[in-house]
Amino acid sequence: MSTTGLPFDDIRDLVRSMPGADIPSAHAARHREQELTKPAGSLGRLEEISEWLASWQGGVPHVDRPLVAVFAGNHGVTAKGVSAFPPEVTAQMVSNFAAGGAAINQICASYDLSLKVYDLALEIPTDDFTEAAAMDEKTCAATMAFGMEVLMDKPDLLCIGEMGIGNTAVAAAIYAGLFGGSGSDWAGAGTGLAGEALARKAAVIDQGLAFHKGHLSDPLEVLRRLGGREIAAMAGAILGARHQNVPVIVDGFVATSAAAVLYKLDPRALDHCLFGHVSAERGHMKALEAMGKVPLLALGMRLGEGTGAALAAGIVKAAARCHRDMATFAEAAVANRD
Amino acid sequence: MSTTGLPFDDIRDLVRSMPGADIPSAHAARHREQELTKPAGSLGRLEEISEWLASWQGGVPHVDRPLVAVFAGNHGVTAKGVSAFPPEVTAQMVSNFAAGGAAINQICASYDLSLKVYDLALEIPTDDFTEAAAMDEKTCAATMAFGMEVLMDKPDLLCIGEMGIGNTAVAAAIYAGLFGGSGSDWAGAGTGLAGEALARKAAVIDQGLAFHKGHLSDPLEVLRRLGGREIAAMAGAILGARHQNVPVIVDGFVATSAAAVLYKLDPRALDHCLFGHVSAERGHMKALEAMGKVPLLALGMRLGEGTGAALAAGIVKAAARCHRDMATFAEAAVANRD
Repeated sequence: MSTTGLPFDDIRDLVRSMPGADIPSAHAARHREQELTKPAGSLGRLEEISEWLASWQGGVPHVDRPLVAVFAGNHGVTAKGVSAFPPEVTAQMVSNFAAGGAAINQICASYDLSLKVYDLALEIPTDDFTEAAAMDEKTCAATMAFGMEVLMDKPDLLCIGEMGIGNTAVAAAIYAGLFGGSGSDWAGAGTGLAGEALARKAAVIDQGLAFHKGHLSDPLEVLRRLGGREIAAMAGAILGARHQNVPVIVDGFVATSAAAVLYKLDPRALDHCLFGHVSAERGHMKALEAMGKVPLLALGMRLGEGTGAALAAGIVKAAARCHRDMATFAEAAVANRD
Repeated sequence: MSTTGLPFDDIRDLVRSMPGADIPSAHAARHREQELTKPAGSLGRLEEISEWLASWQGGVPHVDRPLVAVFAGNHGVTAKGVSAFPPEVTAQMVSNFAAGGAAINQICASYDLSLKVYDLALEIPTDDFTEAAAMDEKTCAATMAFGMEVLMDKPDLLCIGEMGIGNTAVAAAIYAGLFGGSGSDWAGAGTGLAGEALARKAAVIDQGLAFHKGHLSDPLEVLRRLGGREIAAMAGAILGARHQNVPVIVDGFVATSAAAVLYKLDPRALDHCLFGHVSAERGHMKALEAMGKVPLLALGMRLGEGTGAALAAGIVKAAARCHRDMATFAEAAVANRD
């Protein structure tokens, strides 16, 4: 980060200087797909995925070092009763990740994905967004920069996920701040709220929106005022990946809110991202549609932890392997169409 | 097969004697899902898959010996010009499977699925269904019995796929025979037809339906008159799996036509089946809806070879692993909801 100017200036510079797609590599991938032993286009989205990987990695698509990065944060707004689970569960689940007992551990093991979990000052929750900005600008920018450090492991595919009790309320507030609407438009069951508890969650979001009214036209202000550490880190990781030629698979409702902040800064900021699944959390499809994104999977999941992104990575791995290892019509001596 | 009575009698006996779901195992799986460290229900269809595996395997769900069985057959009706590819491609693709060069090889390698390819008398195409029954009853029943032999490898999960130039026309004819409608209701692009060629395909199907009119009220007659060897073998494999407590993942448009024959014999005959994906072939969703089945994936694929089923098997493997290896709230010392 620079030592002069405002902390967000560096973030804005990184958005302005994003590299574009590698068009020749995309064309080469598309051409090869048409030579492989199958009717043209018959692998559907798998063919699109190969072209997408080629576009953003540059060169021949590969998935040799896939990484799932899970960021965990705690939220002051949990004091207002926005989750069915107590906030201690964030740290307990981080221990569960470390012990290999969570869903994301099993999915990573199923597809040989590396898993790294980043514990973001769990003992210092962000401030309650109904009473203050969740973070100051310096903390938010520094957390985004921390998120970029996941690229130091040199993954060739990055899956983005999170853990944080209360963070579906936080994500819903971010969506309302970015796209408009009220708490009831974006609040969902999260870990299992219904009825009065869900109405309370929506009302808490509305309080936050009212408190920060007039300060939400800048997406980075939405992030620091209504967001959380894990969401800032995910936004940073997505942006950092763009600069390192690493395609990203975004997980569900909460992870997508981090992506949405970047989208509102520049819609092209998500061109290197695949949305792994649509969550059962009710606002997720609405958020994806607001950005024109079509999720890969629809399995009724709503767990977070990167689970939807990791399942999608299993498909992406298969797509890359088909692209690389299938025989061409000429190699296999198979007749092409009449 | 019995040596007395009609060849189809044995098939009808097997349909009548199908075992049902193991309800106690299903309940045990559902109970365990509620103890695992995640909000109840948050793994969505993955939880349903675990319960489905338990129901049909009996006991704790497992995917330790998954097998993709691909059946290949040739079709006399290709003489009428129903495919963009010449019929020689069926045998050429079987060679490509053996050499490891096809899409299904790469997907199986991605998820550690065994692959077996069964070449069903490719040098003897079935008869052209516009002029004769595709098969006699003895051939059809014997081919179904052959399909059941895939169970001799003792898989614990069976994926069903096929290869056969012309067989989307055959499958479309079967759907029309089973569910009603004409060639234009069920014919699709297959390997890549459009315009006049697609209209010809629909007309050929209509010729077949007219030729066999009055003989299509029995689903097994639909299979032998309009079907093909690979479709009979797939129907046999699905039925055989039911008797061996092996859950089945059915592939796309053509594989589903084999399942549909069983469905019309008894709708419960597919309760141990998961439909891996919905194909881009236009009639597939209509066929699934006619049977009340919801596919797992929708990736715009239309290749066959078991590719959609094998991709779904990757998801099913992850579901079983989550079920088996996730920690419970008690084991992980994670607080459950308030």
